[in-house]
Amino acid sequence: MYGLLRSAGRFFKPAHAYVLTERQSMTYELYYWPTIQGRGEFVRLALEAAGAPYTDVARGDEAVGQGVAAMMEFMEGSVAGVACPPFAPPFLVDGKVIVAQTAAILLYLGPRLGLVSKNKTRRLWTHQLQLTIADMVAEVHDTHHPIAGSLYYADQKPEAARRARDFRQNRLPKYLDWFENVLARNPKGRTNLVGKRLSYADLSLFQLVDGLLYAFPKSTRRALEKAPLVAALHDRVAQHKRIARYLASERRLAFNEDGIFRNYPELDA
Amino acid sequence: MYGLLRSAGRFFKPAHAYVLTERQSMTYELYYWPTIQGRGEFVRLALEAAGAPYTDVARGDEAVGQGVAAMMEFMEGSVAGVACPPFAPPFLVDGKVIVAQTAAILLYLGPRLGLVSKNKTRRLWTHQLQLTIADMVAEVHDTHHPIAGSLYYADQKPEAARRARDFRQNRLPKYLDWFENVLARNPKGRTNLVGKRLSYADLSLFQLVDGLLYAFPKSTRRALEKAPLVAALHDRVAQHKRIARYLASERRLAFNEDGIFRNYPELDA
Repeated sequence: MYGLLRSAGRFFKPAHAYVLTERQSMTYELYYWPTIQGRGEFVRLALEAAGAPYTDVARGDEAVGQGVAAMMEFMEGSVAGVACPPFAPPFLVDGKVIVAQTAAILLYLGPRLGLVSKNKTRRLWTHQLQLTIADMVAEVHDTHHPIAGSLYYADQKPEAARRARDFRQNRLPKYLDWFENVLARNPKGRTNLVGKRLSYADLSLFQLVDGLLYAFPKSTRRALEKAPLVAALHDRVAQHKRIARYLASERRLAFNEDGIFRNYPELDA
Repeated sequence: MYGLLRSAGRFFKPAHAYVLTERQSMTYELYYWPTIQGRGEFVRLALEAAGAPYTDVARGDEAVGQGVAAMMEFMEGSVAGVACPPFAPPFLVDGKVIVAQTAAILLYLGPRLGLVSKNKTRRLWTHQLQLTIADMVAEVHDTHHPIAGSLYYADQKPEAARRARDFRQNRLPKYLDWFENVLARNPKGRTNLVGKRLSYADLSLFQLVDGLLYAFPKSTRRALEKAPLVAALHDRVAQHKRIARYLASERRLAFNEDGIFRNYPELDA
């Protein structure tokens, strides 16, 4: 779809300018690295849970104007008419709107996908939860890259061992305890983080726990024993009809050691 | 004001429950560590630029129900009626609303303080800028604490030296180049990050640059030579009437080596 529009645009004006100013498609375009779940996965889960039509552009074919090259065009700011080049993926394109930063993408998508309350205070609370999830995700990344994202893990293994130890002993239980507390205090029940319906924050907490179970199986299982509501939420989301179908599909990339959640046994205990 | 209400409340119902459900004061309450600028400063600058009435609660007197103890009550979730205990300061209390996470606080305050556009897409873009500033702030913190926030700097000096080198050589120029690009591409002119009026993102970029100049004076000055629009924005915000008055006041805490921006000469070059 996107590719077709771009091709059509090529004949009379710069492709992206056409896309950005006149396109009225209902298909969201997600841009993220094509071989990892990473931060893009939090957006994918929201789109999948809602059954929303989307193109995972960088996983598409360069021959039809997709692939990583299309993503880099945005990143490098070479797309005509883009006043706001993203600092990093993931970013979402929805007609004229381009939005980067995972939490901001979900803030934007939440109401459109029916994945957040209509109440303003609850929306803000949902966003606050998402930002706290984002903080923990950044800390997970730094367990294997405590010195620099530009270096390999092999170049920072002793530092990673130290950072991962602190993460397992202090940060992991502290975050999970906080989410447990949030579930326990939800005045509408202990099933969801906010209110009594599924929100994008529930989906993201599922993904966070799923990633932690992959990266730090021993310490995460131990921590989850003290956070049974978080564990139950994780299991419940995995059984959500559309999510279960997605997780079993080829669209769900497997965790791997290029992503944020990496299984390096020496970092777990 | 806050202290008085709490005292009055004590006679007939739990103090905070009263505050949270019936208080109609127009005074915002900011809760943050009392001896550092830290993340609280991004909120203070917005409140100050707007001339909004606020209480910096943890810097107040415990005798009137303020001070760090009042902040800890919220953090520990022991405040009656609080379904959403903050994970960490800063947080803002505005009547019934409690919001944590610096970027979420500014998302909430922006429209109320006239520090963001009325246009929804521009509001989202402003928020995205704020989230990118938050990412850089976290990276600055980790230059002196690459292993663990729970350890002293003295316990992680070799790791800090490595991480700071990567920060100076790669991250600092990359972020400043991006903000420079954002200013250069603003269709409404190169004075502000978004549109042609001061937004909370401008104030936060000022604070970020101010902190970088304190922490990494040599490398920041060098990087700013290639980001003249960012440097000009920093200088312009410092001269904003209310901000200039604030910066000269006792309310502005000095940078110090307990905060996020720390001047450790061995980490600069």
